Amino acid sequence: MTDTPAPLYFDCDTGIDDSLALAYLLASPEIALRGIGTVSGNTSAAQAARNTLGLLSLAERDDVPVAVGRHDFLTHGYDGGAPHVHGDDGVGGVALPEPARAVEDGTAADLLIRLSHEHAGSLEVLAVGPLTNLAAALEQDPTLPTRIARVTLMGGAALVPGNITALAEANIGNDPEAADAVFAAGWPVVVVPLDVTMENVFEEAHRDLLATSGSPVARAVAAMLDFYMDFYRATYGRRCSALHDPLAAAIAVGRVRPTVAPAVPAVVDTTDGPGRGQTVFDLRGQRQGARDHDGATVRVVLSTDAPLADHLAERVAGM
Amino acid sequence: MTDTPAPLYFDCDTGIDDSLALAYLLASPEIALRGIGTVSGNTSAAQAARNTLGLLSLAERDDVPVAVGRHDFLTHGYDGGAPHVHGDDGVGGVALPEPARAVEDGTAADLLIRLSHEHAGSLEVLAVGPLTNLAAALEQDPTLPTRIARVTLMGGAALVPGNITALAEANIGNDPEAADAVFAAGWPVVVVPLDVTMENVFEEAHRDLLATSGSPVARAVAAMLDFYMDFYRATYGRRCSALHDPLAAAIAVGRVRPTVAPAVPAVVDTTDGPGRGQTVFDLRGQRQGARDHDGATVRVVLSTDAPLADHLAERVAGM
Repeated sequence: MTDTPAPLYFDCDTGIDDSLALAYLLASPEIALRGIGTVSGNTSAAQAARNTLGLLSLAERDDVPVAVGRHDFLTHGYDGGAPHVHGDDGVGGVALPEPARAVEDGTAADLLIRLSHEHAGSLEVLAVGPLTNLAAALEQDPTLPTRIARVTLMGGAALVPGNITALAEANIGNDPEAADAVFAAGWPVVVVPLDVTMENVFEEAHRDLLATSGSPVARAVAAMLDFYMDFYRATYGRRCSALHDPLAAAIAVGRVRPTVAPAVPAVVDTTDGPGRGQTVFDLRGQRQGARDHDGATVRVVLSTDAPLADHLAERVAGM
Repeated sequence: MTDTPAPLYFDCDTGIDDSLALAYLLASPEIALRGIGTVSGNTSAAQAARNTLGLLSLAERDDVPVAVGRHDFLTHGYDGGAPHVHGDDGVGGVALPEPARAVEDGTAADLLIRLSHEHAGSLEVLAVGPLTNLAAALEQDPTLPTRIARVTLMGGAALVPGNITALAEANIGNDPEAADAVFAAGWPVVVVPLDVTMENVFEEAHRDLLATSGSPVARAVAAMLDFYMDFYRATYGRRCSALHDPLAAAIAVGRVRPTVAPAVPAVVDTTDGPGRGQTVFDLRGQRQGARDHDGATVRVVLSTDAPLADHLAERVAGM
């Protein structure tokens, strides 16, 4: 990391683990959160914006602009999100302050493009929802990649099963065409897939640390996690939570470092076959150690240097 | 296993590891090899039949009928095989006896169907090439599955990369439509994918055991492996050989037992997208231990009870 905080644009579908990731970003001195765009996914883009504004209000960070992004995906409509995972409102029914301010006039893509000019060459992009806004921004301004330092995204599954189909993870599977465009854009992309997010688990003890924190944001997120942890009981056999979006945030912030993360040819399956929405990484020939392919711009994270949960809980509880 | 040897039909694209698997089958008292069908894959169906007859002649097993199966795949033509892996003749240039007898009059599908009547209910099918012959037999006689005890096949990749594309393994990738038909036929299928075959490795010491054997078949296979092991140097960083077809043979014979092998929904990607030829197993929800899906007839082997190589080398060397 540089000594000055890196400017960061955050694209999200807030969402319970998005909320935890946002809290972590707000608590992270390594980055400066310059703007947030919302997209449909866990909940609608409009609801995600309300949730985001509520959390920023709790954190007294009304300086961070929030723009509503795409409600529908590139080739099909938003289908109602994942209320069984994130609740009807995306935040497990936890009351957040009514927004005291409005969202930005423009779209999320407009905000991203504006920030890319204000921080040309240094802007970090962190995307933890469907990649519809990023694809829209690329379509709107094909020169965008030249001004972005790096795109870190939560999504996909390399050598593990998907979560919405046998092969597809929700963020990529919701908008495969958008994800494929983001993979193909030539900017440096770091993909944080289920392979690593499912291995980083937030336990009840971590949640307790947030629940007893002096920070209203931490306490609100702890209340949301009470809902989220019920969903994961069937997966892990106990109440706990995978750390999808927070892991991508910690990697973007530089506090968790990928250890195996080869740059390889990467596309997204945009057919209507059984692989639709699958991230296709060419991981052949890696048996003797991770090996980057010449010219590959997409890096897939297959392992990291340390578990995230303790650091995450401490940082957010200490906000 | 029962006390009487199980009757077995072997479908193959002989091939160096096919040859090793055939030698193993001939040396296995647990099964009785009742017929062999050949298919294009590693080499052409016709060349595979010549190789098979040559090996059977060396083994003095001219009692085993050999039928030539499909040259072309269901939706496209045979493309010349894998001479860089198996040599121009499929057996690494190793001289085998000229066949002293002819192949069967009918096709491989005809032979399989005939054997299924002769051994109705007990016939084991072992397929280690593209599944074109099996699909042809299903098309020719839809009642075939009712007379087959089990189909064991080498093919596919569940949670590891493919070998002919990022996602597809050669046997399945050569004829995805055939493989999809075999998966859908309702008979019990045991899939032995790259996940386990790449973890079973034949070393130089194993090859030496074959090369110094009193068996002409073992010595011929050892000579073929000299060619094959050069190919795998790039994969493993040393001269050795993955045991694709032999592992499927040992599982069909019952001498290697699957330890994690859930029965799950399984299809093959038959699109023209990046996943074409991929085996799609729904492995979600297996984190707390292997779990069979109700009604699923396809079992995918993800781990086995013991390494194969020592047993394989000893049995084939002792033929």
